[in-house]
Amino acid sequence: MDIDIHNIVIVGGTHGNERIGFHLVKKFQQSPELLFRPHLSTVCIIGNPQACMQNQRYLEADLNRCFLKADLENTQLIAYEEQIAKALYQTFGPKGNTARFLLDLHSTTANMGLTLILVNDHPFNLQLAAYLTHHNPLIKVYRWTQTDEENAFVSSICELGFAIEVGPTPQGILVASLFAQTEQLIHQILDYLTLMNQGSPPKIPKQLTLFQHLETLDYPKSAQGELAGMIHPQRQGQDFQPLDPGDPLFLTFQGQTIAYEGNSRVWPIFINEAAYYEKGIAMCLTQKLDIAIQAS
Amino acid sequence: MDIDIHNIVIVGGTHGNERIGFHLVKKFQQSPELLFRPHLSTVCIIGNPQACMQNQRYLEADLNRCFLKADLENTQLIAYEEQIAKALYQTFGPKGNTARFLLDLHSTTANMGLTLILVNDHPFNLQLAAYLTHHNPLIKVYRWTQTDEENAFVSSICELGFAIEVGPTPQGILVASLFAQTEQLIHQILDYLTLMNQGSPPKIPKQLTLFQHLETLDYPKSAQGELAGMIHPQRQGQDFQPLDPGDPLFLTFQGQTIAYEGNSRVWPIFINEAAYYEKGIAMCLTQKLDIAIQAS
Repeated sequence: MDIDIHNIVIVGGTHGNERIGFHLVKKFQQSPELLFRPHLSTVCIIGNPQACMQNQRYLEADLNRCFLKADLENTQLIAYEEQIAKALYQTFGPKGNTARFLLDLHSTTANMGLTLILVNDHPFNLQLAAYLTHHNPLIKVYRWTQTDEENAFVSSICELGFAIEVGPTPQGILVASLFAQTEQLIHQILDYLTLMNQGSPPKIPKQLTLFQHLETLDYPKSAQGELAGMIHPQRQGQDFQPLDPGDPLFLTFQGQTIAYEGNSRVWPIFINEAAYYEKGIAMCLTQKLDIAIQAS
Repeated sequence: MDIDIHNIVIVGGTHGNERIGFHLVKKFQQSPELLFRPHLSTVCIIGNPQACMQNQRYLEADLNRCFLKADLENTQLIAYEEQIAKALYQTFGPKGNTARFLLDLHSTTANMGLTLILVNDHPFNLQLAAYLTHHNPLIKVYRWTQTDEENAFVSSICELGFAIEVGPTPQGILVASLFAQTEQLIHQILDYLTLMNQGSPPKIPKQLTLFQHLETLDYPKSAQGELAGMIHPQRQGQDFQPLDPGDPLFLTFQGQTIAYEGNSRVWPIFINEAAYYEKGIAMCLTQKLDIAIQAS
């Protein structure tokens, strides 16, 4: 692959109540030498400074849903986060460019460990994901692509790179072990990019297991649209574990179990993510795939 | 003890992002028959409706710090929560009355299981706490009283009753197992009160282990007052476990361990509670006490 990567962008605090990314970026800004690597220039950015100040996900709009090309070019959209998105786009765009490698740091209340969230199929990202999961089997890879649907995440600005999701952690706090895991992963990625730049790319596995987005499921709701149940205790915390038709999925407030009614096995993730209640998402269903990785 | 209890008040959603209490109260309001007991009249109330709508702890002031007598009688205080506090006080006051039994439902990001939070030494509360912990050893009792300091919690309106804290759970979500545990505890308490009213009080253990509040500890901070570290990984989730001088307590962002510098063993709780970052509380230190329970 004929890609030289010299410019890295690390974004933390895209959501103001996800504190690990926010404090990691602050740490790197205070001690930039930690990220020094030969031939690499790394910029660290707080995605949503005001939301971080207020320790809330966003002020007016979810910044990580503001990067549709049409929205970025729509001068009518002037919410606080829409303005941030336009500024980031102006600095690091155009959308889908390969001039930089971008990491966007997130955390989740779901039991997702360290998950790489890919929003495209670029061979460079797949190779890197295969390398990282090979060296740390606890890392999972989620490809959140939908047919004919443009991705609106921060990480969609750059074709190279992805979001890193770490959990489970409540919003608004720092869990030291997850902070350390995220920091270590960033260093592994920078080391990989350095080896690539030095012309000594590491050996890449020929296969990658990834979880391909299928659809989202909402919570049980009343006729009035009110929340009527919870994630079933047997499903809570079971991200990346298989869910078969008939398996318990939800428990209503009255104590009735609601089973999964799909036709085939799926692998739910983002189970009981706090920020997704308002989006009507109880979990994301995925399909587990083994895909072949192109050699460089 | 010569106490008749016929009027129960259950408050949920005192903090709008603690969803277990909010949804339990909604359930009880929709199905009041669940709480029917002979000679008991139970009222269920959403403490902070606007905060619940917005899924945040409070709008202008922490409702669970608004119940100092002087504040309740201060007509200058008109923040949204201060007005709620005055209305609750008018309905269920005067402060420290024994006309009603009040339960206030909370949840925490700390690993506190089911904890009863007492704000006074009333023998009735201690007996009930002894009864409940005897039947469920997983229940802990925390007495958050401070010498010469009036308590400002919702539960301080009524002398009888206490707050129930359940965790660990992120803010903004429902964990079904913790929802069920809280619901079951409420039923156990109502059953106990029913037996008392029927003149057949259950046998009370002669001793109660409780955790007496000592002081709060803040996170490490920089000279500028900014957060400089996290709960040490060895202390995270270790609520109610002993902490000895020299034990690891915090980990700075630079990776340095800060040990506990106290003079004697303490038992920290509310470790890494999300809502307490803004209060400058990393944990509450307590002393473990075995106290004798008066017979009725």
